[in-house]
Amino acid sequence: MIKRALISVSDKTGIVDFAKELVKLGIEILSTGGTAKLLRDAEVNAIDVSDVTGFPECLDGRVKTLHPAVHGGILAIRDNEEHQKTLQQQNITPIDLVVINLYPFKETILKEGVTMEEAIENIDIGGPAMLRSAAKNHKFVTVVTDPRDYEKVLEEVREKGNTAFETRYDLALKVFQHTSHYDTLIAAYLGKDKEGFGDTLTLTYEKVQDLRYGENPHQQAVFYREVGFQAGTLVEGVQLQGKELSFNNINDANGALELLKEFEEPTVVAIKHTNPCGVASGKDIYEAYSKAFEADPLSIFGGIIATNQVIDGRTAEKMQDVFLEVIIAPDFTEEALRIFSDKQNLRLIKLSNITVKKQKAIDMKKVAGGLLIQDINKNLMQEIETVTEKKPTEEMMEDLVFAFKIVKHVKSNAIVLVKDKQTLAVGPGQTSRIWALQNAIKNSTHNLEGSVLASDAFFPFSDCVEAAFKAGVKAIIQPGGSLNDKVSIEACNEQGIAMVFTGMRHFKH
Amino acid sequence: MIKRALISVSDKTGIVDFAKELVKLGIEILSTGGTAKLLRDAEVNAIDVSDVTGFPECLDGRVKTLHPAVHGGILAIRDNEEHQKTLQQQNITPIDLVVINLYPFKETILKEGVTMEEAIENIDIGGPAMLRSAAKNHKFVTVVTDPRDYEKVLEEVREKGNTAFETRYDLALKVFQHTSHYDTLIAAYLGKDKEGFGDTLTLTYEKVQDLRYGENPHQQAVFYREVGFQAGTLVEGVQLQGKELSFNNINDANGALELLKEFEEPTVVAIKHTNPCGVASGKDIYEAYSKAFEADPLSIFGGIIATNQVIDGRTAEKMQDVFLEVIIAPDFTEEALRIFSDKQNLRLIKLSNITVKKQKAIDMKKVAGGLLIQDINKNLMQEIETVTEKKPTEEMMEDLVFAFKIVKHVKSNAIVLVKDKQTLAVGPGQTSRIWALQNAIKNSTHNLEGSVLASDAFFPFSDCVEAAFKAGVKAIIQPGGSLNDKVSIEACNEQGIAMVFTGMRHFKH
Repeated sequence: MIKRALISVSDKTGIVDFAKELVKLGIEILSTGGTAKLLRDAEVNAIDVSDVTGFPECLDGRVKTLHPAVHGGILAIRDNEEHQKTLQQQNITPIDLVVINLYPFKETILKEGVTMEEAIENIDIGGPAMLRSAAKNHKFVTVVTDPRDYEKVLEEVREKGNTAFETRYDLALKVFQHTSHYDTLIAAYLGKDKEGFGDTLTLTYEKVQDLRYGENPHQQAVFYREVGFQAGTLVEGVQLQGKELSFNNINDANGALELLKEFEEPTVVAIKHTNPCGVASGKDIYEAYSKAFEADPLSIFGGIIATNQVIDGRTAEKMQDVFLEVIIAPDFTEEALRIFSDKQNLRLIKLSNITVKKQKAIDMKKVAGGLLIQDINKNLMQEIETVTEKKPTEEMMEDLVFAFKIVKHVKSNAIVLVKDKQTLAVGPGQTSRIWALQNAIKNSTHNLEGSVLASDAFFPFSDCVEAAFKAGVKAIIQPGGSLNDKVSIEACNEQGIAMVFTGMRHFKH
Repeated sequence: MIKRALISVSDKTGIVDFAKELVKLGIEILSTGGTAKLLRDAEVNAIDVSDVTGFPECLDGRVKTLHPAVHGGILAIRDNEEHQKTLQQQNITPIDLVVINLYPFKETILKEGVTMEEAIENIDIGGPAMLRSAAKNHKFVTVVTDPRDYEKVLEEVREKGNTAFETRYDLALKVFQHTSHYDTLIAAYLGKDKEGFGDTLTLTYEKVQDLRYGENPHQQAVFYREVGFQAGTLVEGVQLQGKELSFNNINDANGALELLKEFEEPTVVAIKHTNPCGVASGKDIYEAYSKAFEADPLSIFGGIIATNQVIDGRTAEKMQDVFLEVIIAPDFTEEALRIFSDKQNLRLIKLSNITVKKQKAIDMKKVAGGLLIQDINKNLMQEIETVTEKKPTEEMMEDLVFAFKIVKHVKSNAIVLVKDKQTLAVGPGQTSRIWALQNAIKNSTHNLEGSVLASDAFFPFSDCVEAAFKAGVKAIIQPGGSLNDKVSIEACNEQGIAMVFTGMRHFKH
C-alpha cells in the first residue's frame, strides 16, 4: 500500500495534477523547497521534509534530503522485522512513493556561455541519492522520474492501492538508465578538455528515432545522437521532403558529408554502398553536379548526393533524370524544391552548417565482446614530397590533392583516378592493391589519358605503376613508406610519371 | 588544509598504510563498519561516523552516512560565510578528504549463479552519494576512489598541507567516470532481459589495452571490452606468441571469428582488409587450410587466419610457407607451437570457446554526431526455395548454403563463387553488383566450371545470370525480392542454371 509520497521535482510538468490525485487516494505528501511551494499554492497539502528530518533547509539546499529520516524511510525492508523496529525506534515513517527529477545539468551545459561554476552548481546530489535508494528498494517502493509515468502509477494505485512489482521494476531500471546518463554527461563535461582514454569508457546518447530496420530488414535498429555538438552533422539536418531516412541512408549520408568536408570549392559527392562513385568540383553547383554525375552515370543510380552549394532549379532539373535516394545541401532554392516535389519519396536534407568540421571526436568499431575506439581521421597529409625526376605541373598537383582527399574516404584497398577535379574511376575495397587499380580502370567509361592516380596506402610492388602507365596516368600520389618504394619510384622514372609522397596512410574499413 | 578525512572502502588495498600516513600528517579519520574495524585493528585511531551523526548504524548499514553531519561537512562551501555559520550552528565539522570505493556490484553480477537479490543488495547507495558530494565540491574537497591515487594525494598533502586544485579536479572527474560506469552496469543488469532500446542509451566498457595506433598511424586508439559475456570473442583469447595485436588486426580477427562461427565442419577462414579472401571446409584442419590457401594464394599474404580446429604440426608447417599476421584457433599442438616459434612476430591466439556464439548483442556504426545501433545479424535464411526449373543437386545445395554463409560476411555489394566447399572467387565492396561478379571472375585463378554463386542481395537485372553462365556457374543462391526477379529466373531457365531464394538479404558495409 502506498501511504506516503516524497515529491521533489525540477521539471514541474503535470506535478500539481499528479499530487492532487495522490491526495485524493489518501496519500500523504512530503516535499521540499520550490515543489512544496508550488503544491501549496495549488492548495495541495504538503509536509516539509525539514519537518520530518528536524534539520533545517540550509547550505543553499545542498543537504535537505540527505538524512536518515528520508533514506531510512525509503530503504527500510518492509518485511524485515528488525528494520521495522528500527523505524519505530527512530520515529521514521516509511516513504512508499518517490517522485523526483534532477537539476537540469544537460540544459545548463547546453546553454551558450555557461561557466564551469554554473555547471557544477547544477550537479544534483540529493536527487540521485533518493532515486537510487528508491530504485534499490523497488521491491517495496515506487520511484518515478519521468512525468510520462504519472498516469500509469495513478491507474495502478487507484485499482489496487499499490503499483505492480513489474511496474516498480521497470521504474527502477529507468532510474539507473537516468542516473547513468546524468553522470556520464557530467563526466564528459568535466573531461571535455582532457586528452586520452580512461580505464573505463562510458558513452551516452539520446534517441533520435526508431528506424524501420537496420542494415537488413531482419535487424532492429535505432538512431541515437550525441548530447551537445552536432553542428554540420546529419543529426542537425532538417528534412524538407521524402521518406524517413533508413539505416543505410544515414550511414551513406554520413560518409558523403565526411568526404564533402574535405573541399572548399563547389563540390558534389555521390555515394553508393558507403563508397564514393562520383566526386567533382566545379565553378558552380551545376558544373560540379554534372561532372560528378558523368564520373559514373551507372553507379549513381540509387545513390546519395551531398554538396556544399545551394541547389538551384537548373541543377534540380538535371538531378531529376536519375533515381537518387537522398540529397543533402546547405539549402535548396524555391524553384529546386518545386521541381523535386514531383518525386515525393526523394529525401531532401537541408544542412546549413554543412561545411563545419569537428576537430576532436571519436570513431568506433564494434567488435564482438568489445569496442575499438580511435580519434577521427581528421588529417590529410604529413608533407608533400615529389620523389620522381618528373615533377607534377601545378594543375596535376591540384588534381593529385583532390584525388588523395577522395581516396581517404574509399574503403581499403582503394585507388582513385582523377582528371580536372573529376573522378574518372574509383576502385574500392579490394584485398589486393593491384586489383583495386585494375577494377578502377576496367569499370571506368572514361579516357584515362592524362589522369592522376591516388592510392590510400603505399605500393608494395611496381605492378601498380606499370598498370597506371598503360592506362595513361601521368602522376601518382600515395603515402610512401614501403621498403620497396625505390622499385615504384624507378618504374615511374622509366615511364616518365611524376609521383608524390604524403607521409600519411588512409586505411578505411 | 586537509584536517579531516572520511574513509569507507570496499576494496581495502593499501588503506591501512594510507590512513597511517594521514594520521602522521595530523589528519583526523572518520570511518564506518568494516573499514573502521580494520583501521583500529591496525592501531589507527578512527572515529565512528555514528558518533558524528548521532544516528546509530542500523537497517543493515543502509543509511549510515546519509546524514547532514556527513554531507554538510562535505558539501559546505568553505569561503561562504553563511555556510560556515550553518556548520557552526549545526555543530558540523568539515570533511576535507573523502576516501571511498563502492560495493562490488560488478564482481557480484559476474559470479556464477548470482541471484537478483544478491545483485540488488550490492547496489551501493551511501558510497556514490558521498563520492558525488565530494566531487561536486572539489574546489575544496579531495575525493579518492582508486587506491592507485593514495600516493599522489599523500605527496601533495605532505608538501603543502593540501592537494592542488588540478588534482582535485581530476579526482572529481574520476568519480563521475566511476559512478556513471557503476550505474550503467546496474541498468544493464536490471535490463538484461528487456527488449528494445530506450530514450537514452548509455554504454560502458573497460580498457583492455592502449593500442600503438588506430586504423592509421596518425590516429590514437584503445581497445575496450564489454563487462560480462565474452565467451568466444577475441577479448577472451589468450595470446601465445607474437607482437601485440594492432587495431586492424583486432578488426580483421573479429571479422574472421564472426564468419567462422557460421560453420560446424572443420573450417579455415582467411581475412584481408576485413574481407574473406579464402574460406574452405574439409575433413580435417590440414585439408581445410590447404583449400583455404589455394582459394587465393596471393591475397592471403599478410592475412589473418581463424579455424575451429586445433592446429597440428603438419598444418603449421604448411602455414609457415606464407606470411600471416595472426592465427586464431581453439588450440595448437606442441609441435605446431614449436614450428611457429621460428616466426616470433606471428601472433598466435588460443580461443578455446571459438565456436560459442552470442545470440543477443548489439552492433553499432559511429556516424558524426550520433550512433547507429542495430541487432547483430545472427540469422542466415528465412527459407530456402528453388525458383527455377532446374533443381540443385544435394551437393550443389551444400555448396550454395556454404557460399551464402560467406557472402553474408563480405562487404556489399558482394559475390562469392564456391565449389566443393572452397571459395574460388570473392568479389567484395562494389557500388554495382555486376562489377562485384566481374571482379570475382577476373581475379580468380580457378576453373569456375561447375561452381555455384552467392549474392548478398537480389539481382536487379539478368546481367549477373548471363555473366555467371559464361563463367561456368551451375547454381545460384540469393535473397530474391526484386520486382525484376522474373527476368533473372527466366535467364536461369534459359541457361539451365538452378537458383534458390533465401528471403534474407545480407548487406554489410
